[in-house]
Amino acid sequence: MPGIQPTDSGWLKLNTNENPYPPPPPLLKAIHNVAAEQLALYPPPLWDPVREKFARASGVKSEMVLVGNGSDELLSIITRCFVDKGDPLLVTEPTYSLYQVLADIQGAVIKKIKLGDDFSLPEELFEQSAPLTMISNPNPPAGTLYTAEEMARLAKSVDGILVIDEAYVDFARWNCLDLVTQYDNLIILRTLSKSFSLAGLRVGFAIAQKEIIDGMIKVKDSYNVNCLSQVAAAAAVDNRDYFEENIEKICRERKRLSTELEALGWRVFPSDANFILTEPEGIQAREVYEGLLERKILVRFFDRPGLDRYLRITIGTVQQSQQLLTAIGKMMKKV
Amino acid sequence: MPGIQPTDSGWLKLNTNENPYPPPPPLLKAIHNVAAEQLALYPPPLWDPVREKFARASGVKSEMVLVGNGSDELLSIITRCFVDKGDPLLVTEPTYSLYQVLADIQGAVIKKIKLGDDFSLPEELFEQSAPLTMISNPNPPAGTLYTAEEMARLAKSVDGILVIDEAYVDFARWNCLDLVTQYDNLIILRTLSKSFSLAGLRVGFAIAQKEIIDGMIKVKDSYNVNCLSQVAAAAAVDNRDYFEENIEKICRERKRLSTELEALGWRVFPSDANFILTEPEGIQAREVYEGLLERKILVRFFDRPGLDRYLRITIGTVQQSQQLLTAIGKMMKKV
Repeated sequence: MPGIQPTDSGWLKLNTNENPYPPPPPLLKAIHNVAAEQLALYPPPLWDPVREKFARASGVKSEMVLVGNGSDELLSIITRCFVDKGDPLLVTEPTYSLYQVLADIQGAVIKKIKLGDDFSLPEELFEQSAPLTMISNPNPPAGTLYTAEEMARLAKSVDGILVIDEAYVDFARWNCLDLVTQYDNLIILRTLSKSFSLAGLRVGFAIAQKEIIDGMIKVKDSYNVNCLSQVAAAAAVDNRDYFEENIEKICRERKRLSTELEALGWRVFPSDANFILTEPEGIQAREVYEGLLERKILVRFFDRPGLDRYLRITIGTVQQSQQLLTAIGKMMKKV
Repeated sequence: MPGIQPTDSGWLKLNTNENPYPPPPPLLKAIHNVAAEQLALYPPPLWDPVREKFARASGVKSEMVLVGNGSDELLSIITRCFVDKGDPLLVTEPTYSLYQVLADIQGAVIKKIKLGDDFSLPEELFEQSAPLTMISNPNPPAGTLYTAEEMARLAKSVDGILVIDEAYVDFARWNCLDLVTQYDNLIILRTLSKSFSLAGLRVGFAIAQKEIIDGMIKVKDSYNVNCLSQVAAAAAVDNRDYFEENIEKICRERKRLSTELEALGWRVFPSDANFILTEPEGIQAREVYEGLLERKILVRFFDRPGLDRYLRITIGTVQQSQQLLTAIGKMMKKV
């Protein structure tokens, strides 16, 4: 279940980890410059020049890059490439909920290894073997960042394909891109939905050895990324500096909001993503969620055992945090 | 293998059945009106209001419509929903080549029933049973239109899901939409790529009973159609009159070009699509294809037994046909 996407206006959306800063004018201009004639033609099936630009920015050959209709499509393609009915798909618990959905669709058997109470990777994870393993890094719901050493160790231990889903990594202290040249069973996923403010355009990237990318290209639809998304994605890569500034603002605000919530006595887990997981103190998480909902503020509440103590809050602007904190303050007074 | 998509300019593209008339200004305006803030948010997962508009224009309830990232994505979703490894997928030979590709990816076993020499449906087709059958109507490579009676008969005989892929149906004398309320095993596919001049935007529609659509929604990615495609698709439906005029022009030009080629002694098959299949006389199809390629004119040549006598030519504007006919005239003189 993805988070609520209200269709009416006036909501403060801190529930689906979107970026509060819109993409810059040059990106819109790139979209507006696409001629009507171009819309009538099929888009480049192998995404030139966006593939080339992203590869260069990432320091890899373009043959190591696949562009997807969001990284969700890439995860779906990977599942179809690497697990058959009945095969195990290894994940952590908790993690991005889509992995379970994709395993179910493919008829694979999800194998969940429970994380530590602080969401750390347990020793048990490194004792498994599976044709396909999917790890989010940073990992929802807390934004926990695992080390490159842990990921390298996992790449060696899993005895199959390891996906490191780096959807949130631009907000993190480090990433695992370098590992992709060292391990031929590794796929790194990136997205423009979070750090590049383009959730609406559905663009994700897979980075892996050429053999893996070639196999995935055989499974993808011929024209999987539309012409406007390709043009916008190329402009996004060209305007990286603009997005870097927003990333810095979001990371600063993550720190500030965490401090404010901790001042209320709430537990806040360390996060390397554009969201935080917090455990309210003196009030139930569900109660906060519902109270905020009444005030048209959306945060994420996971209504299942083990997670229903927590709220996941997307990091917005300073003003948005202030609106959230004011609303929380009012609710706390009533308790 | 999709047709060649040249990246340099100066080509006359009559090879991939794109529409020579660009989408109208209101459609571009709809794209340009999407605010930067909107690009940063996830798109509506169930495609309101485009779903609603298309359903209304088609005279069905919106719960009977699924919007896809091109009808290729819908075909892929259907394959994943309705055939397992080893299951038969029933098609005609020849037909749209993607059906074979999707069967291979899914591990299904393609079962090809050879069409008559005039591409008519053989009696044998109605004696098969399969969990999934895919029929293009009109059917490439000739643009052959089958009757609603034949399709109804097939819906009854196949003993599984029947997909009627109506990608080209807006150029045809009739369609089979009415059958969808009568047969609960039927899925009709439509696309905006051909008659609506939006190949670059990847928008297709599936129309079927609610139970089928609900099953397909479970398999699709959460956000499979991006926000700009949704907005453009809604504008396309709103501007149907503009596209109808272009469709009429293309149908007139289909007739004219056919007559001109027949005057050269070439065989032209009856077509209800925006392309024709022709068998050159006094010169080999391959030779025409290569001669046109040298003149930067792309038509489709199928380099395989049974089809290598033919060329498939997309219907363009009057001027484009003239350029093609002039080039063919010059080649014929040399023979």
